[in-house]
Amino acid sequence: MQVIKGFEAGKEALDRGSLRVWDSASPQVLDRIEKLFNERLTPREVVSRILDSVRWRGDSAVLGYTSMLDGVDVDVESLEVPKAALKQAYDAIPADLRKAMETAAARVRSFQQACMPKSWIDEATGLGEQFTPMARAGVYAPGGLAAYPSTVLMTAIPAKVAGVDEVTLATPSGRDSSGPNPTVLAAAYIAGVDRVFQMGGAQAIAAMAYGTESVPKVDIVCGPGNIFVTLAKQMVYGEVAVDGLYGPTETLVIADGSADPVLCAADLLAQAEHDALASPVFITTSETVLAQVAAELARQLEMLPKRNIAAAALEGQGVLVLVDDLDEAIALGNLYSPEHMCLLVEEPRKLMTKVRNAGGVFLGESSPEVAGDYIAGPSHVMPTGGTARFNSSLGVHQFLKVTSVIGLDSETFHALGEDAARFAEAEGLNGHARAAQIRLERSKGGGL
Amino acid sequence: MQVIKGFEAGKEALDRGSLRVWDSASPQVLDRIEKLFNERLTPREVVSRILDSVRWRGDSAVLGYTSMLDGVDVDVESLEVPKAALKQAYDAIPADLRKAMETAAARVRSFQQACMPKSWIDEATGLGEQFTPMARAGVYAPGGLAAYPSTVLMTAIPAKVAGVDEVTLATPSGRDSSGPNPTVLAAAYIAGVDRVFQMGGAQAIAAMAYGTESVPKVDIVCGPGNIFVTLAKQMVYGEVAVDGLYGPTETLVIADGSADPVLCAADLLAQAEHDALASPVFITTSETVLAQVAAELARQLEMLPKRNIAAAALEGQGVLVLVDDLDEAIALGNLYSPEHMCLLVEEPRKLMTKVRNAGGVFLGESSPEVAGDYIAGPSHVMPTGGTARFNSSLGVHQFLKVTSVIGLDSETFHALGEDAARFAEAEGLNGHARAAQIRLERSKGGGL
Repeated sequence: MQVIKGFEAGKEALDRGSLRVWDSASPQVLDRIEKLFNERLTPREVVSRILDSVRWRGDSAVLGYTSMLDGVDVDVESLEVPKAALKQAYDAIPADLRKAMETAAARVRSFQQACMPKSWIDEATGLGEQFTPMARAGVYAPGGLAAYPSTVLMTAIPAKVAGVDEVTLATPSGRDSSGPNPTVLAAAYIAGVDRVFQMGGAQAIAAMAYGTESVPKVDIVCGPGNIFVTLAKQMVYGEVAVDGLYGPTETLVIADGSADPVLCAADLLAQAEHDALASPVFITTSETVLAQVAAELARQLEMLPKRNIAAAALEGQGVLVLVDDLDEAIALGNLYSPEHMCLLVEEPRKLMTKVRNAGGVFLGESSPEVAGDYIAGPSHVMPTGGTARFNSSLGVHQFLKVTSVIGLDSETFHALGEDAARFAEAEGLNGHARAAQIRLERSKGGGL
Repeated sequence: MQVIKGFEAGKEALDRGSLRVWDSASPQVLDRIEKLFNERLTPREVVSRILDSVRWRGDSAVLGYTSMLDGVDVDVESLEVPKAALKQAYDAIPADLRKAMETAAARVRSFQQACMPKSWIDEATGLGEQFTPMARAGVYAPGGLAAYPSTVLMTAIPAKVAGVDEVTLATPSGRDSSGPNPTVLAAAYIAGVDRVFQMGGAQAIAAMAYGTESVPKVDIVCGPGNIFVTLAKQMVYGEVAVDGLYGPTETLVIADGSADPVLCAADLLAQAEHDALASPVFITTSETVLAQVAAELARQLEMLPKRNIAAAALEGQGVLVLVDDLDEAIALGNLYSPEHMCLLVEEPRKLMTKVRNAGGVFLGESSPEVAGDYIAGPSHVMPTGGTARFNSSLGVHQFLKVTSVIGLDSETFHALGEDAARFAEAEGLNGHARAAQIRLERSKGGGL
């Protein structure tokens, strides 16, 4: 864990350069590729091959890669999980977990409803915007060892609220070919997912982007995944829409002298336990708080079941920075552009207006990141790796598109037609100019 | 030009399948590649090489490809066009064209201002959305033979209205190394573009996406371009945001028995003159109108300076379809998902609500597509190739991102904390559960 003093040193430590975390693979991954493909391929080459195969061979390629890469045997008949299995999974989960999931789902739904943009036409100008939902969305939910039913709620519900006709979920079976994680299926039931396919990895993204005999082609693929899923999303961009490319998770906590070091450390550790590549970053204006948080991190780490992962994340990416004032803290936060920016300061609402780049901003002690992960309402699928500079959290807007409405009245068109024709002539487009002029002439009783 | 009767036959003719027009190249392009690179490379391979070179070698790669591919010699000092040249170009254009461009710019600005979403927080829930602009946008404007100053207004102004700090324009020099098209520079002046670089093709996209010694790295690359520009945009997606991938332009006109065949034909020809690959599509419920439009197309074609291009487009992609009613017409329109959908019908506002997939919808005789191209207000940069199924017209939303705001009060958090902890435990994330529980215990006077 790096401890850094001063703004300039903080800048250096938090500048991400142009590294794309989602495009680099560990030596272990490269070795596994070589073993499976009998060739030293890059992850990008592997994914390119998988995409091509699924595009041209459909189901059989999906099933083949599922067997080869996931070690799971699925046949065409069982590729789609029957709808009844979702309800069964829902009925089988413990009542208190079910209640927690239902509460989360209701809050996600209600927040997304509040985010829905409205179509409008300005009657004075005849111009407006008409929002329409995509027809089909494909949601990816990782499975196997780390299954996140919460992610199903956080992706599928925004799609349904946006008005998507059919939401497809792709999620891999467990290693024992026992089918997808039951809690993931229960979440799919709660979220109102229309169809579930037991498939994972790049082959799942390809199946949804191109369509196969069994899997319908969608308009957008979304949700987090491993490097192969993410590369596949990058490469199908344009064929379909993509919500974003997600890497390891990140939390940046900004604290002033009023912050509770116990809570700061707990929130940083919640971040760190996700993944050895997770990034817990702490920026404070108080030297005392900095020292206390460092001590608390060491103390609380010992109590964590996942202390090995958390320790690796702290060691690898953990940074504690001391700065002079909150303006410097926010400047560093905006430079880093984290997935989660938590403001443990006296006046978080005031500081928030200076946040320019973040997936989500968490205001004060009662809004820890864990609330955002599960229950607050906004989707926990948020831009990582600095992409908050240009990308948004997942929400209804990702599943909507806007059609510009152009409904000029005759008077307006006649006031503008000459200018349009002149501009068109300047670009050498006489047919365009004529389409305008012909209307102007007609109104004067002229013909063509 | 195909003439088709009936809905089912229309469906077959207008189904695009999964063809990506922006990913296929003509034999001439492939030959030129072979000549320039001494290898039979695909356009994608060419672009991949260019991206890598610019990424690692910066300016010198940009200048090298500009010389090699565009036949234009530019040195580092003249890569950026001096600001004074923009004002000079603006002063030098004819007064009536300047007026037309100023009128267009004012209307684009005013429409985009009306489209600006507003940040909000619901005080009851503590949740909201904070919209912030990207810091830097890179706009591409094709140059050389076909320069479109209107496109500069239609891309740069939405970025400026959204609040982007610095808008960069990339546009190639003319073949004679005389610098960019002066009307394009004048448009850049009007739009308030901050910096202009004379560069084109994939190397321009790479320079803006990665940054070079001279060209600042941007957060989004946008605007239309040829196949190399479009492939480059596809491949840098994720590194930066991309507005969309654009192919040849398309207009689909829906007409009932009330439509004026002269105007229908003029609008289809305005479309057709763009490009031999442009798609003019006509769908009508009236057999009489269909016959009249066919006759008018033949008659008006003869008057067009660009009749060869327009004839090629009509021959290659032109389709006239006769259907039974307007519901069938709209269903075909939504299937085709055109860039422009023009409703030359008695009640366009009523029909509009059934439009699901279109870049822009043009209502009635006084709203021809030419008005949208130049002067109506909404950006003429709209999704093509069927991507209106999932993409929107260019606008402020492309240059904004939204940060989710999570500001729960203590009471709300305490009501939800147990559910959050339970959900976290179910996913095996005890550190998350602890971050919630520690807050609940504190309020009961407990410690850690």
